[in-house]
Amino acid sequence: MSSYYFDPQDLAEFAGEKMKKINLHTSAQMFCDVYCLLPGQMQKDHAHEGNDKVYCVLSGRPTVRIGEEYRELGVNEVAVAPSGVIHGVRNETEENATLLVIMAPPPG
Amino acid sequence: MSSYYFDPQDLAEFAGEKMKKINLHTSAQMFCDVYCLLPGQMQKDHAHEGNDKVYCVLSGRPTVRIGEEYRELGVNEVAVAPSGVIHGVRNETEENATLLVIMAPPPG
Repeated sequence: MSSYYFDPQDLAEFAGEKMKKINLHTSAQMFCDVYCLLPGQMQKDHAHEGNDKVYCVLSGRPTVRIGEEYRELGVNEVAVAPSGVIHGVRNETEENATLLVIMAPPPG
Repeated sequence: MSSYYFDPQDLAEFAGEKMKKINLHTSAQMFCDVYCLLPGQMQKDHAHEGNDKVYCVLSGRPTVRIGEEYRELGVNEVAVAPSGVIHGVRNETEENATLLVIMAPPPG
């Protein structure tokens, strides 16, 4: 695929030491990553003022925290973390999980 | 699901007159919609300076134009239209299509 089109399943990579992020696109407006989580891996809960994040599950059943809620989500389900709301993702299953993640604007 | 979690397949709605957009989230940072296209429906090609758009196919096989390229994409495939690059989507198949669409920042 060219630089405008991506197959996240083809690009996904996993690493034993921690959750892997594959960047598809970065600009002044946003980043778009694929998060790849082996069983037991996570992104620690955090919040950022002024940035929104969208998660869309591509494979597996990751648990996404937004605010005080934790939901195990299936393929094609979506979670939105608005500016300032604590969020994180963890893979509490025995299978790999991938998510498309868009954050706008990008940090920094 | 609460206001942070969404099942786009559950929310999808189709209308005979034109492609339907279901809004999941709007803020100063972005909008996140589900585009729902019956066979033959489309969003006309357009461009916007200063806004990026990400498409992720949730069902069907829509054709996404970015710049001078047209690609029929399958479920979980992603297309990115950077600021200023012409883009659009059409459903040239006989089955319905849905896409998650994030634009940052939102127009206007």
